[in-house]
Amino acid sequence: MSTDPQPTGHDDPAASARGTELASDYTVSLHYDRRLYREDIRASIAHARMLGRQGIVEEDEAAQIVDGLEKVRAEIESGDFPWKPELEDIHMNVESRLFDLIGDVAGRLHTARSRNDQVSTDTRLYMRQACDDTVTALRTLQSAFVSAAEANITTVLPGYTHLQRAQPVLLAHHLLAYFEMFDRDATRFAAAQESADVLTLGNGAMAGVPYPIDRESVAEELGFGRITANSMDGVSDRDFALEYLSAAAICAMHLSRLAEEFVIWSSDEFRFLSLPDNYTTGSSIMPQKRNPDFAELARGKTGRVYGNLFAMLTTLKGLPLTYNRDLQEDKEGLFDSVDTLLATLGVTAGMIGGARFNAGRMRQAVESSYVLATDIADYLVGKGTPFREAHIIVSNLSDRLNADGRFFKDLSLDEFRVASSLFEADVLEIDIDSSIASRDVPGGTSPTRVKAALAEAKARLKEAGQ
Amino acid sequence: MSTDPQPTGHDDPAASARGTELASDYTVSLHYDRRLYREDIRASIAHARMLGRQGIVEEDEAAQIVDGLEKVRAEIESGDFPWKPELEDIHMNVESRLFDLIGDVAGRLHTARSRNDQVSTDTRLYMRQACDDTVTALRTLQSAFVSAAEANITTVLPGYTHLQRAQPVLLAHHLLAYFEMFDRDATRFAAAQESADVLTLGNGAMAGVPYPIDRESVAEELGFGRITANSMDGVSDRDFALEYLSAAAICAMHLSRLAEEFVIWSSDEFRFLSLPDNYTTGSSIMPQKRNPDFAELARGKTGRVYGNLFAMLTTLKGLPLTYNRDLQEDKEGLFDSVDTLLATLGVTAGMIGGARFNAGRMRQAVESSYVLATDIADYLVGKGTPFREAHIIVSNLSDRLNADGRFFKDLSLDEFRVASSLFEADVLEIDIDSSIASRDVPGGTSPTRVKAALAEAKARLKEAGQ
Amino acid sequence: MSTDPQPTGHDDPAASARGTELASDYTVSLHYDRRLYREDIRASIAHARMLGRQGIVEEDEAAQIVDGLEKVRAEIESGDFPWKPELEDIHMNVESRLFDLIGDVAGRLHTARSRNDQVSTDTRLYMRQACDDTVTALRTLQSAFVSAAEANITTVLPGYTHLQRAQPVLLAHHLLAYFEMFDRDATRFAAAQESADVLTLGNGAMAGVPYPIDRESVAEELGFGRITANSMDGVSDRDFALEYLSAAAICAMHLSRLAEEFVIWSSDEFRFLSLPDNYTTGSSIMPQKRNPDFAELARGKTGRVYGNLFAMLTTLKGLPLTYNRDLQEDKEGLFDSVDTLLATLGVTAGMIGGARFNAGRMRQAVESSYVLATDIADYLVGKGTPFREAHIIVSNLSDRLNADGRFFKDLSLDEFRVASSLFEADVLEIDIDSSIASRDVPGGTSPTRVKAALAEAKARLKEAGQ
Amino acid sequence: MSTDPQPTGHDDPAASARGTELASDYTVSLHYDRRLYREDIRASIAHARMLGRQGIVEEDEAAQIVDGLEKVRAEIESGDFPWKPELEDIHMNVESRLFDLIGDVAGRLHTARSRNDQVSTDTRLYMRQACDDTVTALRTLQSAFVSAAEANITTVLPGYTHLQRAQPVLLAHHLLAYFEMFDRDATRFAAAQESADVLTLGNGAMAGVPYPIDRESVAEELGFGRITANSMDGVSDRDFALEYLSAAAICAMHLSRLAEEFVIWSSDEFRFLSLPDNYTTGSSIMPQKRNPDFAELARGKTGRVYGNLFAMLTTLKGLPLTYNRDLQEDKEGLFDSVDTLLATLGVTAGMIGGARFNAGRMRQAVESSYVLATDIADYLVGKGTPFREAHIIVSNLSDRLNADGRFFKDLSLDEFRVASSLFEADVLEIDIDSSIASRDVPGGTSPTRVKAALAEAKARLKEAGQ
Repeated sequence: MSTDPQPTGHDDPAASARGTELASDYTVSLHYDRRLYREDIRASIAHARMLGRQGIVEEDEAAQIVDGLEKVRAEIESGDFPWKPELEDIHMNVESRLFDLIGDVAGRLHTARSRNDQVSTDTRLYMRQACDDTVTALRTLQSAFVSAAEANITTVLPGYTHLQRAQPVLLAHHLLAYFEMFDRDATRFAAAQESADVLTLGNGAMAGVPYPIDRESVAEELGFGRITANSMDGVSDRDFALEYLSAAAICAMHLSRLAEEFVIWSSDEFRFLSLPDNYTTGSSIMPQKRNPDFAELARGKTGRVYGNLFAMLTTLKGLPLTYNRDLQEDKEGLFDSVDTLLATLGVTAGMIGGARFNAGRMRQAVESSYVLATDIADYLVGKGTPFREAHIIVSNLSDRLNADGRFFKDLSLDEFRVASSLFEADVLEIDIDSSIASRDVPGGTSPTRVKAALAEAKARLKEAGQ
Repeated sequence: MSTDPQPTGHDDPAASARGTELASDYTVSLHYDRRLYREDIRASIAHARMLGRQGIVEEDEAAQIVDGLEKVRAEIESGDFPWKPELEDIHMNVESRLFDLIGDVAGRLHTARSRNDQVSTDTRLYMRQACDDTVTALRTLQSAFVSAAEANITTVLPGYTHLQRAQPVLLAHHLLAYFEMFDRDATRFAAAQESADVLTLGNGAMAGVPYPIDRESVAEELGFGRITANSMDGVSDRDFALEYLSAAAICAMHLSRLAEEFVIWSSDEFRFLSLPDNYTTGSSIMPQKRNPDFAELARGKTGRVYGNLFAMLTTLKGLPLTYNRDLQEDKEGLFDSVDTLLATLGVTAGMIGGARFNAGRMRQAVESSYVLATDIADYLVGKGTPFREAHIIVSNLSDRLNADGRFFKDLSLDEFRVASSLFEADVLEIDIDSSIASRDVPGGTSPTRVKAALAEAKARLKEAGQ
Repeated sequence: MSTDPQPTGHDDPAASARGTELASDYTVSLHYDRRLYREDIRASIAHARMLGRQGIVEEDEAAQIVDGLEKVRAEIESGDFPWKPELEDIHMNVESRLFDLIGDVAGRLHTARSRNDQVSTDTRLYMRQACDDTVTALRTLQSAFVSAAEANITTVLPGYTHLQRAQPVLLAHHLLAYFEMFDRDATRFAAAQESADVLTLGNGAMAGVPYPIDRESVAEELGFGRITANSMDGVSDRDFALEYLSAAAICAMHLSRLAEEFVIWSSDEFRFLSLPDNYTTGSSIMPQKRNPDFAELARGKTGRVYGNLFAMLTTLKGLPLTYNRDLQEDKEGLFDSVDTLLATLGVTAGMIGGARFNAGRMRQAVESSYVLATDIADYLVGKGTPFREAHIIVSNLSDRLNADGRFFKDLSLDEFRVASSLFEADVLEIDIDSSIASRDVPGGTSPTRVKAALAEAKARLKEAGQ
Repeated sequence: MSTDPQPTGHDDPAASARGTELASDYTVSLHYDRRLYREDIRASIAHARMLGRQGIVEEDEAAQIVDGLEKVRAEIESGDFPWKPELEDIHMNVESRLFDLIGDVAGRLHTARSRNDQVSTDTRLYMRQACDDTVTALRTLQSAFVSAAEANITTVLPGYTHLQRAQPVLLAHHLLAYFEMFDRDATRFAAAQESADVLTLGNGAMAGVPYPIDRESVAEELGFGRITANSMDGVSDRDFALEYLSAAAICAMHLSRLAEEFVIWSSDEFRFLSLPDNYTTGSSIMPQKRNPDFAELARGKTGRVYGNLFAMLTTLKGLPLTYNRDLQEDKEGLFDSVDTLLATLGVTAGMIGGARFNAGRMRQAVESSYVLATDIADYLVGKGTPFREAHIIVSNLSDRLNADGRFFKDLSLDEFRVASSLFEADVLEIDIDSSIASRDVPGGTSPTRVKAALAEAKARLKEAGQ
């Protein structure tokens, strides 16, 4: 906490309660862009070194600038940096302090660059790391799913469609569905990272710069894979941020689906799941409550992740080339989506890691249901009944059983044969296990396939470096 | 700034750069809800007094609680309050401190209320004030428009459709169009306030409370117009916040239209407008620049205001009754929209207040155009030509003039008569002033009507207490 | 179906599959704006009559135009109207047909008006009616809730927070929570109607018109309460549509919450509810399924209603005054939200009307739970225990019971007294009914209060003309 | 148009005007999903063939089904198909007709598949083609930009930041900025296609199917690159649609930026651009108008493309596994975004293809401005002045010139030297051409770099098969 600079007033309850802000504060971004200090200093150092190498500034001037920038970084990290909100942003704070520390030579740093390409470079550096962090968090979450699936490889529960019991499935199969979703998410964040991985320094105000700079070497030092191909596009392009925000929205949607299941499964009526104690909370008024607050918050935070995407799309709509100050609005929502997503991925991994699944309740839910109806219809199809006709026969049968409070397993062969003379003794062998085993197709829920899917999931994680 | 408590880490650049957050932080709301301290304490005091009056707690216990709460408020306002992020929210911080100050009797405060109705009451108190503040800011802005209109009552500019010069209008008329937009905005915020103006305390966890509380007296003390009619609805209703967010989105849209005009009118090509110096900024690289940054930011911030609305709509979608922790996500976006809107309204009033309109450029734009075409067509209609035919005649005429670089005022009567024999000498009297004067219908741009509209605008502001 | 004109190709599967559209189709709006034919003709008739009254056209010309317009309307309604997509919109189709029917005098109709104020007037007429229809549909739905509440005035179920059983409530109380939501919705649509209820005709292209028109008389004939005060604002104002779309989004959110409850309550695990047969569907593959498809669609359609709001907000962002062709995009989303909302309100009323609530399951859910915990804690508070301490005692107690698979009703007085010596014999009298009866505060769930709320709900509906 | 089936009432003006819809219509999707008839039949044919190959149905039965399906397709394409809205969707219409044509054997087609995986397969086939079409349209648009850039390789205009003249650039450079945006768009649509390119058939209701199907061979016949790995994920995954919608939103944003420039550049004040006649329209009232309606609509349609994305994100939020009827809402918005985007890309290519750029006006805008200020400051930097100091000197200089209505080219060397003694005679050589030539860095606007960029752009298009 020691590095926290003077607050800029945005979290001051008194100021906030007044609900007012001076006009002069309107353009200030320091309260959120100071988190870019590492990226800003790193990019400036690379720029300064290149200016020196190219002879645009003297080598020793470049060295002084680099030294000064490193001192600035140390001051920030030790908490000694004298933040000045009146300088508006991280860039001017760093640069101004550089003047204090090394004098007028600091003025040479801004040679051959503009504020626009500096901001853009910082944001891209940040984004690249955020994509890395997000993919890592996704891989961790996927690992937690693999572990949970492995631990529940024989647990049976009803698969649901329309929140109605549909067909029996293995819990491991259900859990691996989420593995697939998060796998696609990881692909999208990797693509967003690829889009961010382009150096913008050198675009200048938007026409390029009139100095013999070496953009490729700066890119190399900063680890960028490419450099921008058009300076006007470069200063106004925020596609990489939109890609992250879009991928985050889809990922948040996945997390909201899981959270919904956590909430429903935690209900007294389902009782499929006990969330770990440190992911539930009590009630200020009702002493008996163990609420799935973390899952609810994970679901609720979908809102802000969607909202941040829409906010940036709105901001960018209809802007003429090239830079417009509207673009300053690109960062807070992005930071918020990154922070929210990383936190939610972590919390979700914690929940899945500590979840206790109630295999007894799940099996009971399968048994006291008609989830074998499809199997019985398929049995008739196997005997030559067209599928549509078999469907009608079994539908009527299950309706009658339901009216009597009975299940398929309670039926005698004779009763089966009233419904269709094609039923034979082997219909009585249809049970939960045979049903699950019969879905023996790639992607299906049979134990063989699920085990194969687990092995495949582990292999993919291994390949991803987990 | 002295009241700023220990930061909760959310603005710590080092923490942020790590992009990680401990699971235990996931449910913390103190960093944003502490701004509700006044509302929280005010509502608790009203609740405690009622408990005393009703004999639910002893009168002297109630008095101790009230005293303690007032001390807590004083501590917060003097900056001496020991904020504890680990207590998660403003409510527990206040309550815990109350225990420190007055001992176990503090435990009686939470009798006959739940955290849910407490939070809801605080938010409604905040919202009520925010609506007041917003309407006040709108009235101030409207006053600035009235002043600008009054100062430009004879200035003529082209009215635009499709950003093409269409017909001459008075600048005052153009400015008063915004007066009308902001007037409708004020009506919407007043409606949002009406929706917020309902006491929720007494709903308990969601079924009501089993104590003989007097909700009406609490409502009266807190200035609420009504009390909620159904406890289950009461704890989960956030319509009042959505109404504010919707009204804010529409208002931000209006502000974005104005900002767009400020930006376009400030361009070298238009030069209709010079924004005040303190609302423009220079460039870090281009020495000649005077950029309309404030207008651009006002336009860009439309994004976050839209995003906050969409975020809350998303969060609320599909939640079963009653309270779900998702609802904790109702505040940050709301606070952000209120802060953004108030700041933007203030900045916009500042811009319009200091704007210098370039009447010469505006008139020149009218003169070197064909904006009298409609008048000339209408002239022919007056002579008996069906409108559609007149339209074609004048369209062809303006095309020919345009090809020659001439304007209607350059035409002789003979030339007019080549186009239509119905033209007579009085067609030459059609000019900018006659055109404007002829729009003499309610809502039209004729000087008489605009003066009447100005008078009406002032009367409306006066009625609104400005 | 006979009135359906030649399709404009937008639903042609072949055309769609090609995924292409000729550039010339890009501006066509006929396929959606032809539904405004009644409004368009009605407004034109009012305009023509006024032109006649004011002597702007001859009285007999006005009469011819009115006759012709009535013929056009009859043609459309009988299906004989020769629709021409190449004329792009409803307005040109009507006007062109008018020329066919009455000759050149048709050209006088467009005197003193522009396409912009014509479109705006049509849309406002449509909107006014749509608000009426929506409020009516809401009132019908509220009536269905009142009937369902009345029929379930003694049914008890667990009230939920966090989808966890919280406290016992009357089902009627739960249902009336939705009555309140829809009541607020009705208020918002009434406000939207008020905003739409303003005549725009007379604004001309945007400066007003140079004819001695009588706007007030046109407003009166069309039933508008007011006329626009500023012509430039008038042609570009779409606030009324945004207000409808915002109110629709909030209403759709309410409907999605109800639909979520329908889906959850229909699950095998809850079985609180049987939806009427005509609101459930089977499965193409699983013979046993009875799926709550209508409720799911009602929930899913929240998406399009939110989307339509954001579409229009996006379209309007940053448009300079006055009319821009972007505004043509104001109608499809609006029509879709109106259609979607009316259909969903109707379907929801049908579902609630035919729903069978399973009172036995609901009571069982209350009994096999710890929802009396708050009551027992409150009992201790009544004996002098501070609330916070009572909360802890009962929390521990319910934990132990839960571990043993027992409930509060299974506890002897001695066992109670182990937890706190303040428990006395009357603690054994705490039961579901006493719990519910004790929430005897305004808005609470006690039978007295719920009956009063029902009476109040009926009175409000009666006042609303239901 | 001949293939257009009986309309289902959704475009019937009379029905629409009533604003009501029967409950029985609520679940109907035929009016929009019939456009999937090709995909539906194609997938069914592949499925039937596989069933035959695997011996799940008799080979001759499979052949009959395939024949029947081909007849159905022929009927639809010839317009003879008897559409039945009461059958709700395209799938049941096709299947029901198949029964008419080939009798009960039709019932075997639905063996080993469910409606859910059928719908998903159809949508993925559609999506794959839509991505292809979109990339093709983007490439065509990029080609138009390359042509326009090539034709304007020597045209100079002011580059803008904040809509203020900033630095001189080549028009070709400005145009190629858009080439880059559309290049990134193409990458995103290719990624969306990759996500769609996965066979879902075989997932059954959600557990897989109990038949020895050969999913790989079906994938091969339908050209899918992969098959889904988890059946529960497979039936409920709509990520591929969200990816398209996200990419479409970003692309629409790019198009809106261009459209905004078209509108601004077409204004009388800028006059940088004359849009082709068939992309402008007149006014119903103002005879002189030539409005950029197509550009405005292109900008306005950003709204619906954003709205469709948010609609689907909203619909998917919080859905438990697996299929829920909410998912039926996945198609209309998707179709609308595809149609809108393809149309807008086409219209935009038409506009850029026929646009006439006014090189004279553009150069004049450069000349009567201070866009050389950066060059002059850089000159001083070259002489040893720190950048920040040079910036201040030139800023003051341009202020003074502006006050006098003069430009840098009007300054004598003596006047320069008053500002700084470092100015020498060669400062007078700084002009537009030298300024542009000096931005000789990768991505910069110097003629050399722009020519290289053009060559690179052509190469990329060639590689993309254009």
